[in-house]
Amino acid sequence: MAEKRKRVAIEEEDEGERPREAPRQQGLAALNFRKKLKSDAVILATIKALCKAEQAAEVQNRSLADLHLPHAFKEVADLSPDSVVTEIEKCILSVAKSILAGHGFGFSVPSRSGANQLYVPELDRIVLKDKSSMREFANSSSVRKTAITTRILQLIHQLCIKQIHVTKRDLFYTDVKLFQDQGQSDAVLDDVSCMLGCTRSSLNVVASEKGVVVGRLIFTEDGDRIDCTKMGVGGKAIPPNIDKVRDMESDALFILLVEKDAAFMRLAEDRFYNRFPCVIITAKGQPDVATRLFLRKMKTDLKLPVLGLVDSDPYGLKILSVYMSGSKNMSYDSYNLTTPDIKWLGVRPSDLNKYKIPEQCRLPMTDQDIKTGKDLLEEDFIKKDQNWYAELELMVKTKEKAEIQALSSFGFQYLSEVYLPTKLQEKDWI
Amino acid sequence: MAEKRKRVAIEEEDEGERPREAPRQQGLAALNFRKKLKSDAVILATIKALCKAEQAAEVQNRSLADLHLPHAFKEVADLSPDSVVTEIEKCILSVAKSILAGHGFGFSVPSRSGANQLYVPELDRIVLKDKSSMREFANSSSVRKTAITTRILQLIHQLCIKQIHVTKRDLFYTDVKLFQDQGQSDAVLDDVSCMLGCTRSSLNVVASEKGVVVGRLIFTEDGDRIDCTKMGVGGKAIPPNIDKVRDMESDALFILLVEKDAAFMRLAEDRFYNRFPCVIITAKGQPDVATRLFLRKMKTDLKLPVLGLVDSDPYGLKILSVYMSGSKNMSYDSYNLTTPDIKWLGVRPSDLNKYKIPEQCRLPMTDQDIKTGKDLLEEDFIKKDQNWYAELELMVKTKEKAEIQALSSFGFQYLSEVYLPTKLQEKDWI
Repeated sequence: MAEKRKRVAIEEEDEGERPREAPRQQGLAALNFRKKLKSDAVILATIKALCKAEQAAEVQNRSLADLHLPHAFKEVADLSPDSVVTEIEKCILSVAKSILAGHGFGFSVPSRSGANQLYVPELDRIVLKDKSSMREFANSSSVRKTAITTRILQLIHQLCIKQIHVTKRDLFYTDVKLFQDQGQSDAVLDDVSCMLGCTRSSLNVVASEKGVVVGRLIFTEDGDRIDCTKMGVGGKAIPPNIDKVRDMESDALFILLVEKDAAFMRLAEDRFYNRFPCVIITAKGQPDVATRLFLRKMKTDLKLPVLGLVDSDPYGLKILSVYMSGSKNMSYDSYNLTTPDIKWLGVRPSDLNKYKIPEQCRLPMTDQDIKTGKDLLEEDFIKKDQNWYAELELMVKTKEKAEIQALSSFGFQYLSEVYLPTKLQEKDWI
Repeated sequence: MAEKRKRVAIEEEDEGERPREAPRQQGLAALNFRKKLKSDAVILATIKALCKAEQAAEVQNRSLADLHLPHAFKEVADLSPDSVVTEIEKCILSVAKSILAGHGFGFSVPSRSGANQLYVPELDRIVLKDKSSMREFANSSSVRKTAITTRILQLIHQLCIKQIHVTKRDLFYTDVKLFQDQGQSDAVLDDVSCMLGCTRSSLNVVASEKGVVVGRLIFTEDGDRIDCTKMGVGGKAIPPNIDKVRDMESDALFILLVEKDAAFMRLAEDRFYNRFPCVIITAKGQPDVATRLFLRKMKTDLKLPVLGLVDSDPYGLKILSVYMSGSKNMSYDSYNLTTPDIKWLGVRPSDLNKYKIPEQCRLPMTDQDIKTGKDLLEEDFIKKDQNWYAELELMVKTKEKAEIQALSSFGFQYLSEVYLPTKLQEKDWI
């Protein structure tokens, strides 16, 4: 009892939210970084150099065709609703001709299986090779899929004529009897994207929105002019349909991609983007299609470097990889969905010791975490960059992870006032 | 094979997204409702009457004190950061006095257990009775909790002085060694709200944001003037901290509270609020604190009726109940978190037959659904309204549920063009 009381009393006395109240070593660590911070003008010059490099590098950006690879590839592009309508009509016309010629009713559908996927290191993304197979109505194993494909084509045709957007769930409910479960209509939707050679957003079928954006960005959404510096602390919800987003303008020097909304909220409330001109974006966890499209559009239109701030765990790294290299499931659309060359700003495994994150704020990795980490070490996008590889190796070796929030142990505003400015000043991204 | 082909062929021929292509009976149902729609001016007059009734009724709104109930109650109010600082200092001063007087170190903490909660039908919400207990440092069973309470008080004191907001997760990370797991710091946070008699948002500890709003609403957020008619199709993200929201203005006639973001997206894209002046809000599923606070503030400041559009299942009804009566976990804060008198517009169990939702778009309720439905039948907020009770009884009896999206079987825009206008025209809310 006495011992317990003593322990509590000591903690109460020694620790505090403000750095100066923290235990000696920890407090000193926090103080040291704060002291080493140069003026904002110096830090701004550093970011300006990064921004310039980005704008110069962008010119060399290569497409699949530039690489002259031995394979042929299936890639999709954004098409206007009118073009999608035309493509569908062409497709159905050729089916009709095939029937009249006695060759039967069927579609040639690109394969989206793992064997038909390829990671292209020069582009740093997964692409789809050009294998495809016939989906025939006069075949008992594919008759249902052929019918579903025809129905989806008809529905998409209507959506594009009416120029309205629906979710996958809406689409499923238009014909539950045929589709049976949503998995079937969803899968055929991806097939149809590949067949028509257009992105899924061109089909006017959108995912639900999750992301928010705040900072030095102005854009037009469905005719409304939106100024993201005037979006309070909550930010602007990212729209589900990217084709309604136009005319992006910005005086930002970089884009800060944040994994979680707690960190987003801290930075928005502190109006971090006014001190260091930037755009802050988050998908609140796992990246959704709308946020990925929005990030890509920002990077492409504004030619800004993207800095990633994620948890120091395999999951955080996986999130960065989805933004950068795409998910295997939608590899046919990787060109439009991925944002190449995201810099890993933090929280990196090496930061844990460098910034002296207290032991009790680090979490032991679970067996599943360690397995995921080891699997990631085998992934191409990690292997091609030795700095990333070394960081992940350190994580797996120390078996320690930490959330962005762990920085709160030095004070609630340590993230925006010390950690990020120090990172920017030291060019501490990889 | 031949049979299969025939079945598919018939479906392809008979059904379609547009009502005129739907099977006879279904198509007629959809068409009938469309034909029965009067002009928008007539429908607007109906809603105006509802709006007027709301503004007249609001005056009679009663508080706990007005009811002269035999119990005493513990309720909390919004306090300014300065007042919270004062309350904390008063609290600590009385602890110091108690120690000096030889009575020891302890806090009087209101009980938040089920036994101390009461549903007040006159107010239609759950409130907390005034039972409380001493949390003493000189007691091995409560020493840790006393220490945690003191630490939380100190952290809140700093937050209110600095006038910044953090999440529960940030708070936890400031002293992981003491709190051990977030459950412990979260629970004490609610205790501290009750002790100080203020809402959790007054403590400057906020939940993560999830909700979005669009439509005829203008407000100021942290100094920025925000016009929700100019928020494109994505809408404005609801801020985590309601105290930054000020000066709401609106020419809307009602607030449309939507359960899911798919329906929100449909209404936003169709700019439903331009045809029928309203504000559309969703928490994208389970209501979060920020959305509940925002809804309440809209209803209180603008004196507008709230119409709820949820799935026809026990979960949808539960969501309405959380908005209206609050969750048991935060009953001490029910006054600030709840929005009384939400009208249940749809999708109601009786709509399934009335609007002839096709069989295949209705889903059978699982055993768990039926159990949840039966439990809800016992709840006070259902029992007090016989119309609500009858609807839920019908749901449990037919064992059928349906999502809002099921309306897409009559066409993607059936929700915004036929279903909702018909509902408004017929005053079909309960």
